[in-house]
Amino acid sequence: MNHQENLSQLRKLMQQHQVDACIIPSADPHLSEYVPEFYKQLRFMCGFTGSMGTVVVTHDFAGLWTDFRYFQQAEKELNNTGFELVKLKVQYQPEYIEWLNGSLAQGATVAFDFRLLPVSLVAQIEEGLSHKKVALKSVDFVSEIWTERPAMPSQQAFLLDETACGMSFSEKLHQLRNKIKQEKANTLILSALDEIAWLFNLRGSDVNFNPVVVGFAIVTTAEVKLYLAEGKLSEPDLSFLQAQGIFIYPYDDFEGHLAPLPITSEVLIDPKRTSYQVQHILPGQVKCKFGDSLIAPLKSIKNDVEVANIRLSMIKDGIAITRFFKWLEENAGSGEVTEWLAAEKITAYRAAQQTYAGPSFAPISAYGPNAAMPHYSPDQRDEIKLKPEGLYLLDSGGHYFHGTTDITRTLPLGALTEEEMMDYTLVLSAMISGSMAKFPRGTRGYQIDGICRKQMWEHGINYGHGTGHGVGYFLNVHEGPQNIGPSNVPVALEAGMLTSMEPGIYRNGKHGVRIENLILTIEDHTTDFGEFLSFETLTLAHIDTSCIVRSLLNEKQISWLNEYHQEVYRQLSPFLNAEEQSWLSGKCKAI
Amino acid sequence: MNHQENLSQLRKLMQQHQVDACIIPSADPHLSEYVPEFYKQLRFMCGFTGSMGTVVVTHDFAGLWTDFRYFQQAEKELNNTGFELVKLKVQYQPEYIEWLNGSLAQGATVAFDFRLLPVSLVAQIEEGLSHKKVALKSVDFVSEIWTERPAMPSQQAFLLDETACGMSFSEKLHQLRNKIKQEKANTLILSALDEIAWLFNLRGSDVNFNPVVVGFAIVTTAEVKLYLAEGKLSEPDLSFLQAQGIFIYPYDDFEGHLAPLPITSEVLIDPKRTSYQVQHILPGQVKCKFGDSLIAPLKSIKNDVEVANIRLSMIKDGIAITRFFKWLEENAGSGEVTEWLAAEKITAYRAAQQTYAGPSFAPISAYGPNAAMPHYSPDQRDEIKLKPEGLYLLDSGGHYFHGTTDITRTLPLGALTEEEMMDYTLVLSAMISGSMAKFPRGTRGYQIDGICRKQMWEHGINYGHGTGHGVGYFLNVHEGPQNIGPSNVPVALEAGMLTSMEPGIYRNGKHGVRIENLILTIEDHTTDFGEFLSFETLTLAHIDTSCIVRSLLNEKQISWLNEYHQEVYRQLSPFLNAEEQSWLSGKCKAI
Repeated sequence: MNHQENLSQLRKLMQQHQVDACIIPSADPHLSEYVPEFYKQLRFMCGFTGSMGTVVVTHDFAGLWTDFRYFQQAEKELNNTGFELVKLKVQYQPEYIEWLNGSLAQGATVAFDFRLLPVSLVAQIEEGLSHKKVALKSVDFVSEIWTERPAMPSQQAFLLDETACGMSFSEKLHQLRNKIKQEKANTLILSALDEIAWLFNLRGSDVNFNPVVVGFAIVTTAEVKLYLAEGKLSEPDLSFLQAQGIFIYPYDDFEGHLAPLPITSEVLIDPKRTSYQVQHILPGQVKCKFGDSLIAPLKSIKNDVEVANIRLSMIKDGIAITRFFKWLEENAGSGEVTEWLAAEKITAYRAAQQTYAGPSFAPISAYGPNAAMPHYSPDQRDEIKLKPEGLYLLDSGGHYFHGTTDITRTLPLGALTEEEMMDYTLVLSAMISGSMAKFPRGTRGYQIDGICRKQMWEHGINYGHGTGHGVGYFLNVHEGPQNIGPSNVPVALEAGMLTSMEPGIYRNGKHGVRIENLILTIEDHTTDFGEFLSFETLTLAHIDTSCIVRSLLNEKQISWLNEYHQEVYRQLSPFLNAEEQSWLSGKCKAI
Repeated sequence: MNHQENLSQLRKLMQQHQVDACIIPSADPHLSEYVPEFYKQLRFMCGFTGSMGTVVVTHDFAGLWTDFRYFQQAEKELNNTGFELVKLKVQYQPEYIEWLNGSLAQGATVAFDFRLLPVSLVAQIEEGLSHKKVALKSVDFVSEIWTERPAMPSQQAFLLDETACGMSFSEKLHQLRNKIKQEKANTLILSALDEIAWLFNLRGSDVNFNPVVVGFAIVTTAEVKLYLAEGKLSEPDLSFLQAQGIFIYPYDDFEGHLAPLPITSEVLIDPKRTSYQVQHILPGQVKCKFGDSLIAPLKSIKNDVEVANIRLSMIKDGIAITRFFKWLEENAGSGEVTEWLAAEKITAYRAAQQTYAGPSFAPISAYGPNAAMPHYSPDQRDEIKLKPEGLYLLDSGGHYFHGTTDITRTLPLGALTEEEMMDYTLVLSAMISGSMAKFPRGTRGYQIDGICRKQMWEHGINYGHGTGHGVGYFLNVHEGPQNIGPSNVPVALEAGMLTSMEPGIYRNGKHGVRIENLILTIEDHTTDFGEFLSFETLTLAHIDTSCIVRSLLNEKQISWLNEYHQEVYRQLSPFLNAEEQSWLSGKCKAI
């Protein structure tokens, strides 16, 4: 892999095709958070292994735009590649558009693979470069250079039966078609893999951490077409889907089916999760209606079967977490436990649970100052050893065939500073305040966010990430549409939504604290003022009480914590041996 | 005024002009909250006197669409007019579009005065009726019918000098042009009257409650054109503006100056505050860029001179309020004080203050169950008398030549129920929680909203309005861009913003409580986590303490209240006589 060689080949192709600038994103045609090996084109082109970045190449500059999480790593990885690191000022912003606007000549040609950029981003590119009257061109230069490109994933997919997912395809289709009609449209194009997985009750292992299957779907008021690689489904699963009237086509047929769509089509497209290629191929007369995903709101409300199954996953996950922390307490003092080893260990404890299907993301196993980086991931080569002092943070999660988990605990490995204890308690206080909130139907996550942060704000403290994200049901650990955070996401929290609650405090070079549970929005009670909702905490694992500064919590918060610990012990203890029970009982003691 | 006659004349005109449906809004070409008499076309056409409604007429139906605030009133007023009340399900939604979509034939012609509907609303009409392929046509039938239409306002306007407004026109223009360039545009069209007033340091009395002047402006990177009715300005003011390079034209010349704009123009338009007429007249080649107002964010940050002046207004307003409540306490028991009389009285106390310029809105003087209607306005004919029991609510405000106020107090006129006291205290608690909040730069009003509501939510209580709105400087009492409330307004609270803080509780048929101060966002302190902001309460008037349920407030809130009362007394007492001082001192006693 000679990256300089890649770059010069790319520039040769750009010259041949009269391209002035080439944009290469870290993305696939489904705009997924995690992509199959086949789409790790940034790693191939310039050696950058981070999950988020964009390469932009002109004839006299080659840059990788990425955010603060990857500055150090990218500098190392880009060394001697011919690619320069360009530091993003604002995370996720396509700041290269502004740069292109300053660098390109009038009438320049900008090329990228139309399949890899979402409709919304291309609109930004067009707007940002409008003064330059650039031409956009679809190219796939990477495939020409990357002669030994990995194959597309070929693992078999499978269907969830109704006892696992609680709602049949036909019922979901019925709901979806009603929504399509409400939008005064007749066609919906689906590219987002978790939406396809939800609709067809389909799961697979095409992508790391996301139990999804690479595919597309076209749903009209009259028919349903599903596009999957051949051989993805077993014969019985294939027949099952076909028996429900679904037409199944090879994955590569998808694009060919767009152009012949009837010109009376009114096509709903989620511009953030649909590639520009789709818009580009659709016949000009077809009416495109851009709007938020119709499936995300349906998918976010977990049905009764899903909720019951999630509760079982939480018990399994709680057992794994309990065993892990017991092991950690017994071994951290040895000086031989590294962050990496701890991450392997929690994965092993989860894997020992029946119905485990894999990690829901790469564990963040972070000791001391490393925990101050919210998206830290341990590197085996670094051999960071835990010592009997300071704070250790573990943010991890698993997929079970009946639910997805995501949990963070921070705990002391020995003596703590006063600041560490204060920060720990303020995070716990924020987590409890959010978890205890009651609120009227219609309340949005950003209002809950203020409630969570209020107390630490009084102490002049804040955290730079959201407070909570939606979590899928045996699906992506990050899903929409709801969000608890400062962003203006105009989505009300509804009964049945599963969301994380994970405030944190991070002190550069010192320590990081985050405590995270998953909470289910439930109906609380109805008053003269309408229906009120609240949260039920589903995650079951003790929260360290030894480093609490009691004066920072009020009596209601302490009661909440004591009741939570009673519940953790009640639910987990039947599955633990006597020694584990006794250990957990100590951890769950009322304060 | 025979409304049936109006309707039949309108239908005759519709027939002559081949119009199938006619939309008549309660609006002027500036999309103002309050409109001049000239634009009260709904009152003329159908007799409806509410401030918000839309008349839609077809050949077989004539309806007035309005919201719950006006249901009773509209039913009364529309009786025997030929117009029917159509109740809006959601406030401010143009639900008549859906109705037109169901009623009109393919290819129908829908007519309205293009000057009276904003760009954003016409886009909704076009979208909502797209299946019907309707033609839109601009008509002004009302003028043809309304032969004795009132004249346009002719009161003289005036300029504020720099000691009053703190920033010269040329400095504001400089800031504005920078923003125009940042948006990669060269032309800004201004229709919103408070924006024009701010930019030119111009005030007037063309509209009830808003000290603005009817006009338009076109600001380009090269020149500034201001359109005002002739005679609006005194000769010295006219010369002063002209000396700064402003070209002043007659109001009616505005439209004629749009068509000849150079085709290289890139025109910024706020689609909510610019009429569709503007977009319609602009040459097709001109590039329109739709986006939020550039002036609103500049106007919202009060400069040091403005803040110092606002403090003076608050003292004057506080004196008026103090005298009013003393008078009320001494007279409410007489059985002769009506809601209307009380409203007149507070206006009179304000008018006695030097530099008073008028009420900033119609006082909400509401006794008992009437206060449960947040937008209630007393009617002289109703003669609602205050009695020595229950709660009285007064929401009122004044314009001074150096600031605008808006204050609500609720107070007991005698014995209260336990529920009244609980509700009173929960509202006070919400008001204090919001006022005490500290928060990092970047925090938005919706996060503060959650902090305000948290405690009453725990009691299953909520209120259906926002918690706070921006307030102008001797300008409109409602202004953007910031907002404290559930809406997804993505605007951070910045130092210098003046906002109301006004939670409430309303129990239908029983009582209403609201307590409102104006708060200034100020810089608080900087920590490792960045800059923190907080609020300084500017309103100076005691808050009744006799009906507080002490257990619902925490110690910090009680300290806040006691310190606030000390400050109120310290600032107001020098301007009060001995008797008033002694009365206020009692009201400000620490609890």
